Amino acid sequence: MSLMLAEIAEQPAALERTIKRESARVKRFAESLKQRGIRFIVIAARGSSDNASSFGRYLLEITTGIPVSLAAPAVYTLYGAKVDLRDTLVIGVSQSGEGVDINLTLENAKRCGAITLGITNEANSSMTKVADETFLIHAKRERSLAATKTYTGQQVIFHLLAEGLAGKIKGHEIERLPEFAAASLTLKPQIEAMVERFVFMNHCVVIGRGLNYGNAYEFAIKLMETCYVIAERFSGADFLHGPIAMIERSFPVFVFAPPGPTLQGTMELLERLKTLSAETLVISSESAALKQGTRGLKLPTKVSELLSPIPYIIPAQLFAALLSQAKGLNPDVSRSLSKVTKTV
Amino acid sequence: MSLMLAEIAEQPAALERTIKRESARVKRFAESLKQRGIRFIVIAARGSSDNASSFGRYLLEITTGIPVSLAAPAVYTLYGAKVDLRDTLVIGVSQSGEGVDINLTLENAKRCGAITLGITNEANSSMTKVADETFLIHAKRERSLAATKTYTGQQVIFHLLAEGLAGKIKGHEIERLPEFAAASLTLKPQIEAMVERFVFMNHCVVIGRGLNYGNAYEFAIKLMETCYVIAERFSGADFLHGPIAMIERSFPVFVFAPPGPTLQGTMELLERLKTLSAETLVISSESAALKQGTRGLKLPTKVSELLSPIPYIIPAQLFAALLSQAKGLNPDVSRSLSKVTKTV
Repeated sequence: MSLMLAEIAEQPAALERTIKRESARVKRFAESLKQRGIRFIVIAARGSSDNASSFGRYLLEITTGIPVSLAAPAVYTLYGAKVDLRDTLVIGVSQSGEGVDINLTLENAKRCGAITLGITNEANSSMTKVADETFLIHAKRERSLAATKTYTGQQVIFHLLAEGLAGKIKGHEIERLPEFAAASLTLKPQIEAMVERFVFMNHCVVIGRGLNYGNAYEFAIKLMETCYVIAERFSGADFLHGPIAMIERSFPVFVFAPPGPTLQGTMELLERLKTLSAETLVISSESAALKQGTRGLKLPTKVSELLSPIPYIIPAQLFAALLSQAKGLNPDVSRSLSKVTKTV
Repeated sequence: MSLMLAEIAEQPAALERTIKRESARVKRFAESLKQRGIRFIVIAARGSSDNASSFGRYLLEITTGIPVSLAAPAVYTLYGAKVDLRDTLVIGVSQSGEGVDINLTLENAKRCGAITLGITNEANSSMTKVADETFLIHAKRERSLAATKTYTGQQVIFHLLAEGLAGKIKGHEIERLPEFAAASLTLKPQIEAMVERFVFMNHCVVIGRGLNYGNAYEFAIKLMETCYVIAERFSGADFLHGPIAMIERSFPVFVFAPPGPTLQGTMELLERLKTLSAETLVISSESAALKQGTRGLKLPTKVSELLSPIPYIIPAQLFAALLSQAKGLNPDVSRSLSKVTKTV
């Protein structure tokens, strides 16, 4: 079995550890933020961490009402801009804690008056030294090249932070995430059979919206790095503004369709893709959405949209790892990547 | 000649009109903003307008030091979040002024305490009624399906606004943009010969960074909507965090390489792509960067990076329009698009 598949399977236990060990600390930190009255949140990350941050952005903005921005790290690292970050929380997210541009962004943010927070899997990384506060993922060392357990670990930290700041999801609901993750893992045999169909796929589109927009990017990056598939990623709305023109008969489109406010638009998009004779694979707990797709992966548990990103990304992780294997590749070895990428 | 090519050629005149008619109004508005002391800027847009906004984001954040966020419209339109937008400028950008989600975002932003600004090409559109203030592009009606003259028109409005707020680029430099645009148009015969090579290309990657990151998205969207090419788009830094694994011998990669702080990283990326035997097409005024590519399009004028996005996107627009033609397609007619896309 690949390291990637092994680490995908570790996620329920890893999530449970993270929730258990970090909840109280996140809560205390959130309380101190509330007392200081922060006005903005900026999140800086790259790669999979940036995809987890996209979820964090929606979740924090929707539940706390504080405007959230995904940082353009180059503004700080290359252009050396002095940005007014008073009353601002700047969050850096990096699996290894060694993302040079992210740490530089945190340092710069401090000088610009921000409170800084790091989210990382490595307790002794540079990030923990740079940031005012750090939350750890407790996923144990990630050895696979493709981030999986650290990605969902970052997502669960955002859940805890949003709960601490806004209290819209209760702690006991977050505590059920490991159970939902375990349920998603039971889809493995079904996915293993399904990937056969896609062995010679060399391009595709992945679509997600709102809280699952980051998951679309994450599924695409997994397909790019482990299967060498040219995977484009879009929000359902942006997709209609131009890119849908690419779609022709049998074009593969993967669609996240959780219940909630994004579902209707997603159903309409699936309808449109049907008239274009695209081949759609729908990941959803909703029968109506699954029926609109050429194929479906039915989530074993119906979870509310706010809690959906972790249980929804797991079938996608499995899909990428199993497709890589079916293609005769090894998802743990890339022809041109190393585990820690340092960019400025 | 296609409408798209005709409208690409209109850009110097359109830019000149916009600068002449809007400069004073933008200046007055910027003065009033400075007096009110805004703390945060949010920009909401879709499609090509969103790509122009990506440039606006970098430009405003770098030159004014005010934190800027690209809005997630769904936060307002689907999730109905109440976001604290006091002391915040919310800018909606829409060619037609009829982007439903963008106008809803502006309405919602007003209720949340923001000052709202619209940027559109249509003086009598819904956007002009919703926004507190509107800047017009004066590109005359855009009849081609693919946005070109309205895209650069939106970019020049961002130039004027940044100048009004920060004064880092002088007005007389912005006034030279029509001349730089005209110089880029002289590349047309060279591009017409070059596209022959790419007639059977069905996928590619486009890379840009910082101020030209939005241009990478824009070049990709043009290739998707007018040539049906599967065009992925990345910042140079994000590309190294996973997606570079897709690159194999002869994989086509288009790279914007303007002078300035992003050039060194871009040169290193080109070096890396060379070792992977990718086929690179470099758009640059810099001989060193052009030499690193398999092919190059040399900008006739050397412009500073802050002013580069308009002269740099024009060769890319020409490339898409001419490639569409060489493929036997018509860039003005899409198999599945209409000019005004309404999403929520």
